[in-house]
Amino acid sequence: MHPLLNDIRHTPLLWLLVFVPAVFAVHQLTAEAHTLLFALSVLAIVPLAALLSRATEAVAVKTGDTVGGLLNATLGNLTELVIALAALHAGQYTLVKASIAGAIVTNALFMLGASFLLGGLTYHLQEFNQASARLQAGLLFLATVALLIPSAVGHADQASDPAFVQQLSVGLSMLLMVAYGLGLVFSLKTHRDLFGSTAHAEGTEAPWPLGLALGTLAGVTVLVALVSDIFVESVQGAALDLGMTPAFVGFIVVALVGGAAEMASAFAGARQNRLDLSVGIALGSAVQIALFVAPVLVLLSYVIGPTPMSIEFWPGAVVMILIATITASLVTNSGRSAWFIGVLVLMVYAIFAMTLYLLPPRTP
Amino acid sequence: MHPLLNDIRHTPLLWLLVFVPAVFAVHQLTAEAHTLLFALSVLAIVPLAALLSRATEAVAVKTGDTVGGLLNATLGNLTELVIALAALHAGQYTLVKASIAGAIVTNALFMLGASFLLGGLTYHLQEFNQASARLQAGLLFLATVALLIPSAVGHADQASDPAFVQQLSVGLSMLLMVAYGLGLVFSLKTHRDLFGSTAHAEGTEAPWPLGLALGTLAGVTVLVALVSDIFVESVQGAALDLGMTPAFVGFIVVALVGGAAEMASAFAGARQNRLDLSVGIALGSAVQIALFVAPVLVLLSYVIGPTPMSIEFWPGAVVMILIATITASLVTNSGRSAWFIGVLVLMVYAIFAMTLYLLPPRTP
Amino acid sequence: MHPLLNDIRHTPLLWLLVFVPAVFAVHQLTAEAHTLLFALSVLAIVPLAALLSRATEAVAVKTGDTVGGLLNATLGNLTELVIALAALHAGQYTLVKASIAGAIVTNALFMLGASFLLGGLTYHLQEFNQASARLQAGLLFLATVALLIPSAVGHADQASDPAFVQQLSVGLSMLLMVAYGLGLVFSLKTHRDLFGSTAHAEGTEAPWPLGLALGTLAGVTVLVALVSDIFVESVQGAALDLGMTPAFVGFIVVALVGGAAEMASAFAGARQNRLDLSVGIALGSAVQIALFVAPVLVLLSYVIGPTPMSIEFWPGAVVMILIATITASLVTNSGRSAWFIGVLVLMVYAIFAMTLYLLPPRTP
Repeated sequence: MHPLLNDIRHTPLLWLLVFVPAVFAVHQLTAEAHTLLFALSVLAIVPLAALLSRATEAVAVKTGDTVGGLLNATLGNLTELVIALAALHAGQYTLVKASIAGAIVTNALFMLGASFLLGGLTYHLQEFNQASARLQAGLLFLATVALLIPSAVGHADQASDPAFVQQLSVGLSMLLMVAYGLGLVFSLKTHRDLFGSTAHAEGTEAPWPLGLALGTLAGVTVLVALVSDIFVESVQGAALDLGMTPAFVGFIVVALVGGAAEMASAFAGARQNRLDLSVGIALGSAVQIALFVAPVLVLLSYVIGPTPMSIEFWPGAVVMILIATITASLVTNSGRSAWFIGVLVLMVYAIFAMTLYLLPPRTP
Repeated sequence: MHPLLNDIRHTPLLWLLVFVPAVFAVHQLTAEAHTLLFALSVLAIVPLAALLSRATEAVAVKTGDTVGGLLNATLGNLTELVIALAALHAGQYTLVKASIAGAIVTNALFMLGASFLLGGLTYHLQEFNQASARLQAGLLFLATVALLIPSAVGHADQASDPAFVQQLSVGLSMLLMVAYGLGLVFSLKTHRDLFGSTAHAEGTEAPWPLGLALGTLAGVTVLVALVSDIFVESVQGAALDLGMTPAFVGFIVVALVGGAAEMASAFAGARQNRLDLSVGIALGSAVQIALFVAPVLVLLSYVIGPTPMSIEFWPGAVVMILIATITASLVTNSGRSAWFIGVLVLMVYAIFAMTLYLLPPRTP
Repeated sequence: MHPLLNDIRHTPLLWLLVFVPAVFAVHQLTAEAHTLLFALSVLAIVPLAALLSRATEAVAVKTGDTVGGLLNATLGNLTELVIALAALHAGQYTLVKASIAGAIVTNALFMLGASFLLGGLTYHLQEFNQASARLQAGLLFLATVALLIPSAVGHADQASDPAFVQQLSVGLSMLLMVAYGLGLVFSLKTHRDLFGSTAHAEGTEAPWPLGLALGTLAGVTVLVALVSDIFVESVQGAALDLGMTPAFVGFIVVALVGGAAEMASAFAGARQNRLDLSVGIALGSAVQIALFVAPVLVLLSYVIGPTPMSIEFWPGAVVMILIATITASLVTNSGRSAWFIGVLVLMVYAIFAMTLYLLPPRTP
């Protein structure tokens, strides 16, 4: 276990692991302290997410390029998936959907914009692989169309027919997963020459043995699942206590918590003038959640949820995902970046956050 | 008549001409067999459409570049126009509009996407004239704005005022036709240097004499008109029998039937690495229907329709045309294509088709 | 006062100054002659606006690049600001918002499109600085998102909560002003190398002394304010008399009047093949109104208006601003222009104008 302990010692982020036992202890003593449990579970999930992505990377390095790419592409957002599964199991479909939509928007705007800004504070102009950004933006656009069309095409009475919504949700979910799979074939196999410089490995760190990596992957996933259960249980009560709307918590707070580990990597890449890495992580994560995690959750809802979950989102969420997609597409179009591009993207995110924060609760 | 018979012998698609007498015969015997008549008329229209475009090409070749370009630009979608006229005459405005919207979307997504995919299966990367694609996308965008604005700008009570809708429909129709005409002046006259490589002629086939071409054009147009009458008569009943929604039939089936001939040309171009040709046919047809066929139908509705037809479309159709325009614009922006671009575009079309197919009939 | 009189003698536009005393005289005699007062005040504002921008330029030249750029960036749309302040003071918030939205759309479409067309009639192809157009389009996009989100994110009952609307309006206004300020830092300071060729000074005219420039700036601003009061008072009555909808007057007429002086500069630039100048004025003005004038008006409404004014616009206005932003972004993307691009952009504007002109008054 030496490399793991060594990593923990040298990575201050991982010192937060101390909150993992803390959250379990407090939950045993007093399950009603919503705000405390919420804060502790947030603090516990962040280092666990970092460990998860570290372990995924380590397995990916050991298994070679194609299998490794595939692993990253499926397990890269394991934290988000596990949190959403906990909420799905509890039948909290509004929270599931808010966290999915929030993760897409947060990755495509906050992670991308902050990377541009941080990189731009050091470098006058930065360049990145346009082909890769275009592909990701195209996939995000496809997902947005899938979310948008069901409610836009039918009249109100048709679009809310339960049989229609369910059949269409399953159909669209499978279609998005096929598109995601073909996109992997395209970028990892037939046209990998176009996506050359997006090296995903960090390179500088000592590699973990495969056994340790797999063991960490399994063990930490279980821990994330347990902490997520407490997180999901406490989040609504905490939102009330803190005076935040449930929309703000699901959309902004959960998304920032779930993506903390990837953000650390993306920002580090931007500061080292490896913007390809940052753009790849930010848009790649958004794509993965929209075209893989969300469809998986819809299909799994038939197995583990109390009722089937549809792929229909609240209209405001669809508009925000649409704007995030357009923004990401516009700013990555030229393949160049400077600090103000980052400001623009962050401002769009700030408009969303401000609106959700101020939004009054629905009058019943 | 030798070249015509020769062509028919060597083009398997034209063997379907045998269904032309068949559809008339069955219609005489039993006008109630909706599904049979629907199927036969579909099978009869496809080869007639191919003959029509063959004849238009032949006249265009004989009359020189500018007149030829103009002919192609006005008669290129004669099949769609004749089918829509039959529906217009029968007062079936919903079918007219569904077939117009469906033809725009099918050309801009299915024809374009399938061309990219088919070309990409053979060639690693393909290039095409960006300037031409940009112009077509710009014209499509203009038409989309014209369809979108009337209902978006007014409040519900204003936007449904019949006098307003009629005046605006006539005004917008004339504006779109002027834009289309000026676009032809731009691409065929003042700036033809920018649109160089989009050679529209097939080149390899033996040319038809002018008399034969004009005779075919006239005779086949009459046949298409007669078959279209039967098609329009039978389509609703057939949709009911086949369990398809009228929206799906009008939007997808009619559009695929009407565009079959052009698709054959576009796909052949893509497989011969002449993607300029494919993109030109796909987007050019969409533009022609949006900026020429649709306005002509609105204006003709004052002459041959029971009541004036407006240019207002059902909101779902406007959203699909908008998405098709944005998609076409995004994917042609770089002037390069690979197989996955085709998959992405086809997936957007598949989302539309799936939604329309599953859409329940409106509750009354 | 010699240079001022000299300028007036050589600039036919300034001969319209004779209407300034005329409008005051008529207003004294008969305050009820709405249509006459409307026409006279329009004719009086045009030359005053030209003098204002002349004086701003003169001060800017004297004060060096950065301060000058800043002055242009804040006082460049002083006419629009003063007209809107008059309407704000009178509590005519619908007129204020229509004139803001109309000014954004008119600058981004009419001024840009007419510049492209006028330039294109003389030159086959014209080029302009892409980086500058991209930055402006990005800022316009941000403003559009700010206008769009409040009504799109909330449900109807939430979005109309007065406390929510007010807090959000103040928050968004400050956010837009910060973005505008950072955009100036970016283009005038840290990355001015990217925006090189957009020289804003005319160069050929004799410079005014600073005292004359400042005196003109102050004196003319007062005159514009006085004439604007009469304009705002008469515009509704005149619209009724002339059979124009208030929406058309606020959106189209007021915007064309307020922007007349800048249009003269933009069109002159286009005809001299200095399209950088034209694009800079057109998009720069639209950005300034959206990110500076509009927020200033919202904040000032707390001081001088009868009640606070929100930043929420009527949905039709938001759609038109959105389409104008997308259009401007699409056509400036390539950095090249020809006459037909101008036609396309003007056609989009014509669709708006036609719709607003025909729109029936709301049934009560």
